[in-house]
Amino acid sequence: MMWTQTLSDFDDDTFHEECGVFGIFGNKDAATLTALGLHALQHRGQEAAGIVSFDGEHFNSERRPGLVADNFSSEKMINRLPGDNALGHVRYSTSGATINRNIQPLFADLSSGGFAIAHNGNLTNALTLRKELVSEGAIFQSTSDTEVILHLLAQSPKSRVVERFIDALKQIEGAYGLVALTNKKLIAARDPLGIRPLVLGKLGEAYIVCSETCALDIIGAEFDREVEPGEIIVITNDGLKSMNPFPPMPIRPCIFEYIYFARPDSRVGGKNIYEVRKRFGQELAKESPADADVVVPVPDSGTPAAIGYASAIGLPFDLGITRNHYVGRSFIEPTQQLRDMRVKLKHNANGGVVAGKKIVLVDDSIVRGTTSKKIVEMMRESGAREVHMRIGCPPIKFPCYYGIDTPDKNNLLAANYSLEEMTDLIGADSLGFLSIDGLYRAMGEKQRNPIVPQYTDHCFTGEYPTRLTDLATEPSHRQLSLLAETA
Amino acid sequence: MMWTQTLSDFDDDTFHEECGVFGIFGNKDAATLTALGLHALQHRGQEAAGIVSFDGEHFNSERRPGLVADNFSSEKMINRLPGDNALGHVRYSTSGATINRNIQPLFADLSSGGFAIAHNGNLTNALTLRKELVSEGAIFQSTSDTEVILHLLAQSPKSRVVERFIDALKQIEGAYGLVALTNKKLIAARDPLGIRPLVLGKLGEAYIVCSETCALDIIGAEFDREVEPGEIIVITNDGLKSMNPFPPMPIRPCIFEYIYFARPDSRVGGKNIYEVRKRFGQELAKESPADADVVVPVPDSGTPAAIGYASAIGLPFDLGITRNHYVGRSFIEPTQQLRDMRVKLKHNANGGVVAGKKIVLVDDSIVRGTTSKKIVEMMRESGAREVHMRIGCPPIKFPCYYGIDTPDKNNLLAANYSLEEMTDLIGADSLGFLSIDGLYRAMGEKQRNPIVPQYTDHCFTGEYPTRLTDLATEPSHRQLSLLAETA
Amino acid sequence: MMWTQTLSDFDDDTFHEECGVFGIFGNKDAATLTALGLHALQHRGQEAAGIVSFDGEHFNSERRPGLVADNFSSEKMINRLPGDNALGHVRYSTSGATINRNIQPLFADLSSGGFAIAHNGNLTNALTLRKELVSEGAIFQSTSDTEVILHLLAQSPKSRVVERFIDALKQIEGAYGLVALTNKKLIAARDPLGIRPLVLGKLGEAYIVCSETCALDIIGAEFDREVEPGEIIVITNDGLKSMNPFPPMPIRPCIFEYIYFARPDSRVGGKNIYEVRKRFGQELAKESPADADVVVPVPDSGTPAAIGYASAIGLPFDLGITRNHYVGRSFIEPTQQLRDMRVKLKHNANGGVVAGKKIVLVDDSIVRGTTSKKIVEMMRESGAREVHMRIGCPPIKFPCYYGIDTPDKNNLLAANYSLEEMTDLIGADSLGFLSIDGLYRAMGEKQRNPIVPQYTDHCFTGEYPTRLTDLATEPSHRQLSLLAETA
Amino acid sequence: MMWTQTLSDFDDDTFHEECGVFGIFGNKDAATLTALGLHALQHRGQEAAGIVSFDGEHFNSERRPGLVADNFSSEKMINRLPGDNALGHVRYSTSGATINRNIQPLFADLSSGGFAIAHNGNLTNALTLRKELVSEGAIFQSTSDTEVILHLLAQSPKSRVVERFIDALKQIEGAYGLVALTNKKLIAARDPLGIRPLVLGKLGEAYIVCSETCALDIIGAEFDREVEPGEIIVITNDGLKSMNPFPPMPIRPCIFEYIYFARPDSRVGGKNIYEVRKRFGQELAKESPADADVVVPVPDSGTPAAIGYASAIGLPFDLGITRNHYVGRSFIEPTQQLRDMRVKLKHNANGGVVAGKKIVLVDDSIVRGTTSKKIVEMMRESGAREVHMRIGCPPIKFPCYYGIDTPDKNNLLAANYSLEEMTDLIGADSLGFLSIDGLYRAMGEKQRNPIVPQYTDHCFTGEYPTRLTDLATEPSHRQLSLLAETA
Repeated sequence: MMWTQTLSDFDDDTFHEECGVFGIFGNKDAATLTALGLHALQHRGQEAAGIVSFDGEHFNSERRPGLVADNFSSEKMINRLPGDNALGHVRYSTSGATINRNIQPLFADLSSGGFAIAHNGNLTNALTLRKELVSEGAIFQSTSDTEVILHLLAQSPKSRVVERFIDALKQIEGAYGLVALTNKKLIAARDPLGIRPLVLGKLGEAYIVCSETCALDIIGAEFDREVEPGEIIVITNDGLKSMNPFPPMPIRPCIFEYIYFARPDSRVGGKNIYEVRKRFGQELAKESPADADVVVPVPDSGTPAAIGYASAIGLPFDLGITRNHYVGRSFIEPTQQLRDMRVKLKHNANGGVVAGKKIVLVDDSIVRGTTSKKIVEMMRESGAREVHMRIGCPPIKFPCYYGIDTPDKNNLLAANYSLEEMTDLIGADSLGFLSIDGLYRAMGEKQRNPIVPQYTDHCFTGEYPTRLTDLATEPSHRQLSLLAETA
Repeated sequence: MMWTQTLSDFDDDTFHEECGVFGIFGNKDAATLTALGLHALQHRGQEAAGIVSFDGEHFNSERRPGLVADNFSSEKMINRLPGDNALGHVRYSTSGATINRNIQPLFADLSSGGFAIAHNGNLTNALTLRKELVSEGAIFQSTSDTEVILHLLAQSPKSRVVERFIDALKQIEGAYGLVALTNKKLIAARDPLGIRPLVLGKLGEAYIVCSETCALDIIGAEFDREVEPGEIIVITNDGLKSMNPFPPMPIRPCIFEYIYFARPDSRVGGKNIYEVRKRFGQELAKESPADADVVVPVPDSGTPAAIGYASAIGLPFDLGITRNHYVGRSFIEPTQQLRDMRVKLKHNANGGVVAGKKIVLVDDSIVRGTTSKKIVEMMRESGAREVHMRIGCPPIKFPCYYGIDTPDKNNLLAANYSLEEMTDLIGADSLGFLSIDGLYRAMGEKQRNPIVPQYTDHCFTGEYPTRLTDLATEPSHRQLSLLAETA
Repeated sequence: MMWTQTLSDFDDDTFHEECGVFGIFGNKDAATLTALGLHALQHRGQEAAGIVSFDGEHFNSERRPGLVADNFSSEKMINRLPGDNALGHVRYSTSGATINRNIQPLFADLSSGGFAIAHNGNLTNALTLRKELVSEGAIFQSTSDTEVILHLLAQSPKSRVVERFIDALKQIEGAYGLVALTNKKLIAARDPLGIRPLVLGKLGEAYIVCSETCALDIIGAEFDREVEPGEIIVITNDGLKSMNPFPPMPIRPCIFEYIYFARPDSRVGGKNIYEVRKRFGQELAKESPADADVVVPVPDSGTPAAIGYASAIGLPFDLGITRNHYVGRSFIEPTQQLRDMRVKLKHNANGGVVAGKKIVLVDDSIVRGTTSKKIVEMMRESGAREVHMRIGCPPIKFPCYYGIDTPDKNNLLAANYSLEEMTDLIGADSLGFLSIDGLYRAMGEKQRNPIVPQYTDHCFTGEYPTRLTDLATEPSHRQLSLLAETA
Repeated sequence: MMWTQTLSDFDDDTFHEECGVFGIFGNKDAATLTALGLHALQHRGQEAAGIVSFDGEHFNSERRPGLVADNFSSEKMINRLPGDNALGHVRYSTSGATINRNIQPLFADLSSGGFAIAHNGNLTNALTLRKELVSEGAIFQSTSDTEVILHLLAQSPKSRVVERFIDALKQIEGAYGLVALTNKKLIAARDPLGIRPLVLGKLGEAYIVCSETCALDIIGAEFDREVEPGEIIVITNDGLKSMNPFPPMPIRPCIFEYIYFARPDSRVGGKNIYEVRKRFGQELAKESPADADVVVPVPDSGTPAAIGYASAIGLPFDLGITRNHYVGRSFIEPTQQLRDMRVKLKHNANGGVVAGKKIVLVDDSIVRGTTSKKIVEMMRESGAREVHMRIGCPPIKFPCYYGIDTPDKNNLLAANYSLEEMTDLIGADSLGFLSIDGLYRAMGEKQRNPIVPQYTDHCFTGEYPTRLTDLATEPSHRQLSLLAETA
């Protein structure tokens, strides 16, 4: 029966960040601060959240499907997570139903003691490694690529836990911001290219490592610096040590953090995200102006670019679409008639703004294009005379393998259609994307370096910065058919 | 132990609308459409929701604490609510813990058959009537004032249900948008002054009565007209009948629907809410300009007025505060240190926008002032040079007795302090409110009619449009000490 | 889909007692002691349980589907029920799914204050009264006949609560053991014929009123006396007062309490239940001997009579059937093959005992006969050579209207078949019932008094001791079609 | 706070069997039949239950704390467990709170495919093996000794799954009845000494392997034979294969299965359990007669021995104690006064039987003696003139390490006190145990063979039949301090 359908078809018209991580070492309210930090990182994953604390004797773990604020805000829950050191994770599941065993942090009882790990990113050789490990007798608990790291670590011939961790890191490929907790250390690592973000902060004497600065802000911690690409940080009672076991290479952070993933109030790579997004809109206005009455954002993701666009082109910025933030996990859809109202669960036209107007509709990106089509339609039904769609990034033509849940290439609108075709499909009067060079200009570069690109931008260019080992051997990274268990 | 504390202290710094109602007659997807309609009305009440359907034989009822999308979106739930006619309600609880028995629609098995009722508003003589009814032998199930209407109806000497309903309405005082469902009829009624809103729509042959037009938009229904103040509408298989059993009197809708309660994309009294709010900002800019670099809204409620203010005064509008929409019901607060981060659960300064700037901070209203103080502080910590606070309505000095949860008078900032004192308390460099006349001008009136005011505006003026019978006899409308039962 | 089926079809082959009540006044552990008392009365109703306490200020109520030990044994639950006075109830639902609103004690907020009531028994004019009350404007919360008493009380013109209660009792017909709790009193009442049992006990200074003495034993309370038929007991801080507002009439307790309902270790009417049941077996052995090797009880209900039968006839008593006590609420039954194993969820033959033997199989009663048939079959499959069935009471030919859930007359085996036919249907080699006179002899009477029978024995004789008002006007007491609401 | 206390202190006065297993291969109702089989084995473990099915493509698993009938009886649950082959387990947890990860069947995704395993028994070298495995890089999911078998299997150098399983079995010591399910096979194994029971049955073409014959009876399956000590059985679509990879040795089944663990209607080692227990009572009567009026069992465990005792000595058997079967998991105990009523949650004296009598009180065994003391006291309070306690097995002096949860030696009454002292402590007028030789005689042996005892009887003799490797190196098998995680 296809009678029920989740919002995910509709939501699939954005990219999904898979994770946010937060670790803290040396504060008596460790679990509370971790809960608050994860709450600030909630936009990076809403499917599930988990916290592991260490209380000097035991590791305590609580992992739940659902939002941080719904599961980790009670005194009762925090009391189950005693200790001065804690590690947390928010997760966006990439495939089907969330399996509870996959909720992070993952934990293993190693010969050296307990080891909890939380991962933002994706490994591109996880399946290949997993097969080898299983053939050697390893028993996996989850279907998560992160567990591969645990097994590599457990089987490392090295004796010290940090050495074993580095041993494991050297065998993996892909993108990661990792934070781990042992009975004596908080350990953090960022992939050598710096694809995924990771920052270091301080709250009094306590150290914090987390995915974005907004998680420092919420607890009043100070931003110290970014964890360097390839850097491993080890925090103990004796302070912080840093090492970098990888050969030097040019960094290449994911540009989509700037376009969509990161929170507007975060600073990534020294840049305020919101200001960058406004500049995307400003560049877009220069490259792709429109003769219109008003600039309307697709809220909330398109708002900063729309503000930039409006100011650059000199048109009024106005809220022609109201967004409903009370959206749950899914909504039923009994009939074709009702199917068409899916977009209305989140968005409604504000007739007072758009009726009789020529509007520029600004969004951050187009993935499948299904939402754009509905929104344009909604604008016209509310009386917009003309609808000019403008997109604050270049056309997305290639899927991501670094921890972002993207549709297959044949579901990416720009991978399959020309600009003219897309304009027709979406039903707009005109359609404009930011150019690659415009994108790099907004980032403060003169232009994209074609030899050594400054950013990971494969979704636009197809140039992947690492090997894609699993992809070469496996048709899909979703073929793990483990035990299905409810609860 | 006061170790945990809910967000409500903090949230109390807004007014809370108590309810939204939605009824539909004559569509085979009645329960689904009601769930969608309630989802669109979710801003009017987030504590609980309920739907009653009639399937030609039985009334079916499901009532749950929590959000519509979390409880009424599954096929399983909708299958429990068969029938072509349905009635729904979203609720904001005014006192302490939600008691499940109070979740509406309420239901009674009368001698004439089943009768379900949903109510937006508040009766000002409910306690007085309840005492009389109990002394005559009535047994109440809930502590809700709405149940008084059921008992008046049950005990009416009239024989027909509509006559009995009118009989009941004539005995009650206060504000209401009511929708009721019997085995043959959908009945709606709006209070004679039109204090609470109620609109009529059509979807094909089906009739809809609901609190706001946004609930019509979400299901693709057409707005027909407002239910008139004092009008009773009876919908059966034979169509719609209208009657108005009250003596004619000047209407007086609640002005706070325009300021805060209604959704920006709704039309109330023929006006687009968002446009009215922008005009509040424009009038405010005229009355209370500021020498500044940028206009920053307190999101989301202050955004329309900020846009209006910025355009009128000719300053850039910019998002200096990021709002986190993933806020759950409560968050712990173990220490004084953590207490101060409450405001950060929802709001974070966007340093890139405010640092080094003179800013105008625009909000829709000030109730207790606790949030304003924190936000001003947050702006300063992020480097704002000057903070000029501007409020899109007059000072709130009097509590509400018409279905809005307001603090006691001694917790209303403007009821207790002068403008100068308030400026100091909030920590702003300057503070400006919209005047009463500015408010009326923005509403399209020349000025407030002092004899017969065009709107219910007692929160600013202290002029209550109806008798306050209970208040005269009872110190508080929260003194009902019924059986405490956990769900 | 009839794929699932509850055990109830199978369980319907016994009578079901509908309730047990327990009230205590004046002990600081009132809720704990009530929970323990209800646990001892669990055999009288397993569907749901509830406790109301009064803490000097508020009434507190917790009502749950399921067993007492599963719901009322935690510190957390007991802490929700503070106070020195408490009232509890266990319930067997007579119809379909349990509706949570029907779980007792019921509560009403009367003009005189809160009033909680728990009822064991059934009113035979409840529907008739309910119709009158509803036509006068009463709103019912439940479908329970007990609520009629609350409304009669609420509408009584008398001023004092005890007078109003007596006023209500004078209008009802049927069988009842009632206990009620107000903010100052514990009130108990037993029907004028003493059909349902009710006993009075003391624990230190505290008074207890409950259905059976086993509930006194479990808390170490002393049995004081039975509540007299027609007696109303009022317990306050000043002690106990007794009154009997009914005209004197010969008492007539339900004889089925002795045969099946009461726990074997309880004393009812001055008699030890277990000893009476052994005497049923002894009389049965005299009236209906069998030539056999061993006497086997159908456990647990048939065990006392089997012990009596074996000792009287001089045969060994042996456990030829093992009973599994871990039976839940229902068990699936996907195929015809599986349907036949229903009886095995509870009972299994003990081959070591019955193989090759001539056995006398003793049970307390036969209702539908379906279990008896299966058990006889099970005995034969395990190698019994002959199976002589003996029943410790007369043939049941008439349904009950006094609070016992009985099948319709056409499902009562003995109402439709001769002894010979029943023997054939059950598949036994012989079948014998205790005679009416044997039954009365075992009770210590010379014989049944045909003019004024000493016991309520209508299930055997068809002689009902009260008027059956509802039955005269209503085809079924199950026709209430109120609002269906899931918990 | 010690305010709440579980029944377990009280229940600890028996031994606890830890598990029951049930596997079926080749029936379309596999999960239903497994649920029924586990229900029949519920006496072997009430803490948790689990079922894994294989549907030809996927393994499906459902594991729940609580009773089988409460969790595995719904159509919904059974529908989650499709397939013709299934494996189930009931569990009694030995330590503290049940950890959900420990609920069996356990599952691993091996290189050869999925492998589910269920275990009744205990390994005596599990901790030693676990340490080795962890030091080699194995990551354990549970604290269960059973998982050791999974890792040994995963790491076996052999290629075929049966060979790898045998490889694992050869490394473990202790007692086990094991059943495993792969995507092609049902595999069973019994420990070489046959300490734990395991039987083979057939239902049409389907094979069943389970702990006791009562699980065959409930589904109407035929008992085929016992699985031989040391035998490995492999069932595929091609039928059953048997092998025995262990050197021949004299078998030595656990004698406590006959005394307490097995259900009375099961046949173990060719003997009907109930008949054996009656013979224990008969031998006891010969060895330890008493001058009394009546023989009273401690129900239900003492009932068969009491029947045997009564018939051998020629005294009437009578039910002087009523047992309440509705006992939940725990019951609160706020005060000392209430503490003494713990025993009454399960047992109540039947005054009609014991008052004024000299009674022989028969129980199956004495562990801590706390229950015996309470029951003797209860008999005296109900008026028993003399209480002669008789126990249907020898004094228990040594703990068990083969899957039975026993108290430490210093909590075993008979390990610390003389007969005279025990008589005093219990408060009986006399106390008698069955002798070791009486025990063996009742088992049909002439006497115990002191060189090669016919049964595992270490609880009486201290002679353990296997090495106790962990005990030699570890003070306690409960010292695993893994991650604590709430479900």
